[in-house]
Formats: sequence, C-alpha cells, structure tokens
Amino acid sequence: MHEKDTHFMRLALELAEKGRGAVAPNPMVGAVIVKDGRIIGSGYHERFGEGHAEVNAFRSATEDVAGATIYVTLEPCSHYGKTPPCSDKIIEKKIGRVVIAALDPNPLVSGRGVKKLQAAGIEVVTGILAEESSRLNEVFMKYIVKKEPFVVMKAAMSLDGKIATRTGESQWITGPAAREQVHHLRNALSGIMVGVQTVITDDPQLTSRIPGGKNPVRIIVDSTLRIPMEANVLKNQDAAKTILATTTRADRNKVALLEAAGIEILTVPAKDDGRTDLKSLMEVLGERGVDSILLEGGATLNFAALEAGIIDKVQVYIAPKLIGGATAKTPVGGDGIEKLNQAFRVIGLKASTIGEDILLEGYISKQE
Amino acid sequence: MHEKDTHFMRLALELAEKGRGAVAPNPMVGAVIVKDGRIIGSGYHERFGEGHAEVNAFRSATEDVAGATIYVTLEPCSHYGKTPPCSDKIIEKKIGRVVIAALDPNPLVSGRGVKKLQAAGIEVVTGILAEESSRLNEVFMKYIVKKEPFVVMKAAMSLDGKIATRTGESQWITGPAAREQVHHLRNALSGIMVGVQTVITDDPQLTSRIPGGKNPVRIIVDSTLRIPMEANVLKNQDAAKTILATTTRADRNKVALLEAAGIEILTVPAKDDGRTDLKSLMEVLGERGVDSILLEGGATLNFAALEAGIIDKVQVYIAPKLIGGATAKTPVGGDGIEKLNQAFRVIGLKASTIGEDILLEGYISKQE
Repeated sequence: MHEKDTHFMRLALELAEKGRGAVAPNPMVGAVIVKDGRIIGSGYHERFGEGHAEVNAFRSATEDVAGATIYVTLEPCSHYGKTPPCSDKIIEKKIGRVVIAALDPNPLVSGRGVKKLQAAGIEVVTGILAEESSRLNEVFMKYIVKKEPFVVMKAAMSLDGKIATRTGESQWITGPAAREQVHHLRNALSGIMVGVQTVITDDPQLTSRIPGGKNPVRIIVDSTLRIPMEANVLKNQDAAKTILATTTRADRNKVALLEAAGIEILTVPAKDDGRTDLKSLMEVLGERGVDSILLEGGATLNFAALEAGIIDKVQVYIAPKLIGGATAKTPVGGDGIEKLNQAFRVIGLKASTIGEDILLEGYISKQE
Repeated sequence: MHEKDTHFMRLALELAEKGRGAVAPNPMVGAVIVKDGRIIGSGYHERFGEGHAEVNAFRSATEDVAGATIYVTLEPCSHYGKTPPCSDKIIEKKIGRVVIAALDPNPLVSGRGVKKLQAAGIEVVTGILAEESSRLNEVFMKYIVKKEPFVVMKAAMSLDGKIATRTGESQWITGPAAREQVHHLRNALSGIMVGVQTVITDDPQLTSRIPGGKNPVRIIVDSTLRIPMEANVLKNQDAAKTILATTTRADRNKVALLEAAGIEILTVPAKDDGRTDLKSLMEVLGERGVDSILLEGGATLNFAALEAGIIDKVQVYIAPKLIGGATAKTPVGGDGIEKLNQAFRVIGLKASTIGEDILLEGYISKQE
C-alpha cells in the first residue's frame, strides 16, 4: 500500500509544481483521485485566488468519486478563506480515504483538516512524501509560521572556493546557464539582499533579466550609509524598488538626500559592533510582506547572516576552474568560526549540473 | 550498429575495471566476443604477467569464434612482451571484426595493432567509448607517454571553500567515508606528496590505513630542509619510504643528518624564486618508476604545482558545513591568478556523493 501511496503522491507533487510563480503567497498544492487503482481525476492550485487543488481535481473527475482515495500534497484546509474549506468538500463528495503529504504549517490550523475528516469517518494517512512537499513550499512553510522571509544564500565560486581573483575580478566565474538560473531565482523570490561593499565594488543592477519577469525588492545592508549616490541600485525605482537598511549611525544629511531621491530608508537596531542587526531587519521586512530573500553577499555580510541565524538555504554554484591566491575572496568571510565543531551544518546537500557548472544546495541545520 | 557496439564495449570496460590494483604497471583491459548478437566469450587482464584480456576471452569461448566480433577496450598489442602479440592471436582465431575503444598510447606502437589486423583482412572499428577507456587507465596513459607521474591534486574543504578554520583546525572537515576513500587512493597510487609546511603544521603519517594495503612513497617538497627531525614521516621507513625533495639551498649538515637517519634526499633544480622546480622533480620521480602521485597540499604547494603544469586531475571533497573567515585557508593559495581568463580550466567535472560529503572531480585542461 505504502508504495502505491508514494507513487500517486509523487504525481500529485508534480502537479503542484506547475503552480510555481502563480499562486504565491499561497502554497503550491496538487491532488490526485484514485479509484480501484485508476486515476479518475487530478488537479492543482493554478492561480492565487482561484480553485484549490482538491476542487480542481473533483471538477476533472471522469466518474463518481464516492469511495475513492484522494492524494493531496498539503493538508486540506478547514477554514473559510477565498474559497470554502476543502475538507468539507471532501466529506460532501463521500471520499473514502485521504492521503496527505505535509500538514498545514500554520500552527493555528495545523491538524484541524485531518480531525474534521476523521470525525466524518474518513480514513486519513499523513506523512507520505512530507519532506518533498515541505521543500516544494519552503518559502510558504517558513513565512506562515515565523512571519520572517525565507533566506537563500547564493554564491558563485571556483572549484578552489574563490569568488574573485586576488585583484577582485569576479565577472564571470560561472557560465551562462548558472547565471540565467540565478535570474530566474531573482524572479521567483520577493527580495534580493547585498552588503553595501558589493554595491561599491561591483555596482550591480540586482534585477531579474528575464523577459516579462518581475524584479525583487533590492535590500542593501549599509549601517553607515556609505552607498554612492550614483549607484545603479538607486536608479530606476519604478522598475525595481530599493530599500536601504541602516542604523542610527547613518549621516542625517545622506538620509535626507536619499529620501529626496525616492529611496526608502529603514533604520533598524545596531548590534554591539555597530553593524545592522540582521535578525531585526528580517522581522521588519517580514511585516512588510517580504516572504523570501536571495542573499548575494559579499563575504562579510554572508558570515554576519549565518551568525544571525537568518539563513535557511544555501546554493553554491561551482565553476570548473581553479583561481588560487591566498588573499583571493571566498564566499563566506568575516571572522569565521574558531573550532570545527562550531561549523554551520548544511543538511540535505545535493549536487546538480547546470551547464558547465555544478550547483550544490542544502539547508542550514537549525539545531545547534 | 553503433548502439550495439557501445553496449558491448561498456561490458568490456566493466570487465577491465576488475583488474584494478592487480595489473599495474600494465593497463586494465577487458574483452567481449559476440556472435550473432550473443556473447560467446569474455575476459579481462587479471594479473600482471598473466594472460591478456583477449586471450582470456578466447579461453572462455563457448563455441567457435571464427567470424565473431571481439570488443577490446585497448588496441590489441602487436609486439612480443610477456605474452605473444594479441593481434596475431585474433588473426589466427579468424575473428571477423574487431572493435577497439582506445588506441595504444605508446607512440612507438600506437596504431600498429590496427594495421596488422586490417592487413589480415579484418574489419576494425576504433574510438567506441575511447575516453572512458583512457580514463580507466589514466595513470598508464600518461606515464607510458611522458615517463612522468600522473598527479592527482586532492583537497577536502567546506562548502564555503575552507580547508581549515581561521585558527588552523582542519581535522576533520570531511566525514569518515571520504577519508576512507582517500586511504584507498593512497593505496592505489605509487606516491603521495605534500609541502613541508603541511608536515610542520599537521605532522601527518601519509600512510594508507587499509588492512593489507601498501603505502605510497612519501614525497616532501622542502626547498630548504625545514623538516623537523621528529616528524612522523621520518619514522618507520621500512613501512613507508620517504623522499625529501630539496634544492642546493638546503643546509649540508641537515642533509647529512637526514641521510644518516636513512632518509633519501633528492636535490633538484630550484626556480628563480628559490623554490623547488616541480617539473624537474616529476621527471626525476618518473625515472625512478613513480607513475602516480596524490598531491595533498597545502595551499601554497598546490598553486605552485598548478603553475608548473604537473597536475592532471583534481579531486575536491566538499563537506556540508560552512566555516567562514576572511583569513581561513583555502585549497589553492600562493599568488593566484590575476585575471579570470588565466584560470586553470577543469574538464569533465562531475559530482558524486561520498557518505555525507560530495566529491567533485575533473581533469586539468592542458590547452592554455
């Protein structure tokens, strides 16, 4: 039974994935209805505000669903939102068995859908491919619970761990396929964050260069407002908004100057060392609806973000080249840890080939 | 036809692989005999000095091989060595068609086996899975041609490119499975090389801790003989021999002292900067029969070896952890390159999972 359940749940997950980019801030959800071993209906949440996966699956059914099994990648909702609760719909349709991948992460409603179904005498199985479903909705899963953005630290380095040559040349270490993938990521996440040193050194645009794509809000961490007024990220605020995260150490005249230029300044608490408190910054950005951030460095900010515990996922693109140099920069700088047992652990690390490069990605372990 | 040829050649390569560790300095070779689409015989070179793959395949044949096709991973030999030439044997057996993966790399005989077969009216196809066959025998392929060792640069680093914490702690970054694999590699290669700084810092054994395994010769690059007399690598010369590669800058008294302790000193030319000329060292080691070397760093020697053009293959074990630190060491140090277009290119980069770690490996491109 378990093997069959896994098979149909995998199909439901593949359907769920089709909603990527169109359903946020809702999670991606897929559903498959099976009777006597045959699929008699399937659907997924296609667009924010429209039908949930279960409803779309019922709509597509080619025969009576009474007594059938429904596979859903996320616990059916039990409350009225933009649509009536899916658990009611399942009961009404006389479904015999419900197989669920992940429970609703929202602590206020988690498990309620299951209880409602069980109270109606329906057999419920949970936890089939639960991790896959949670990973699929990793942004949603964090944001709904913590109200802070899901942060992805991204780096591009050589096989010997350098993000630039000793003279600072960094464009481009990785190939076109990896760079294009990063632009897709910028399009998919709601924010992009760099330290002011990266703005001073590289003067990047930090936009998503995808036809028809949307730009993430550009967040520059700049505790003393050192940003040059002519920086690219301060231009074209219509196309891509920029937020400068600073502290009370910033010069008031520079604040006024930047605000006059239409740039939003967020003054957040400073840590003992005078640097921006990144944890506070995440809370503020979360309140403003920033549910996800791509952190693109540099090395000093990356280490500060690790120390602050705000990073959820790491993506390292590794180019097939060796650069060398005892002083060449690496993706994570700062002070660094002293003892190996203090290292930040990455779980679920996996490799994939992106053009000529290799992408290693995993999740920061939150157990210290 | 091509697809079938590839299929049978892959089987022959799998057979060849079985000779690993037992046939050196001969190459690993496998052979499969096919008649009317059926395999009627197969074999591989099992042990140095014993039957070649073709002979073993003929011996195993279950029916008359006349008119059959033989798949051989390496060009059949045309000269008398420890056994009579295999090309003569193939002609004598009235084989109808010979499919060869790689030609013999030895420039003195390469292509001769093919010509002999063709002169006897046999159809010959070459180049089927040629690269796979060459990679299988990568040590042999280089050593037979250049008479210099095949050098594998190995590093173990964190996901952010560090080989130690800022305080120098490096044991252990990678997990037990990766470390065991390195011990197998030490067992398979004939030499292991490190810079004297690694000896001073880590005082390693540089032996293969595999039951029944053999130890590679330990080569320490030490241009001024700074090695401490109590270093572990100077002990137990019966179990593992140590060669100190130095220059005329070495103190004569220290040379005498070390030689009295039974350590071999190789005085090789120095480069303009006074450091050991690694290219010359490889020539000398090659003459002494060292056909392969595992280069285990540190960072300065690794860069010098890249610059000297002596590295053939790179293996980087990447641990699922982040260490940070602007001053923490990375696998390749030294001056490093200045411009990205001067980077040392790695070709055929591929990833595999070794326990909790990921191994990235590839070959240094020799086209500059």
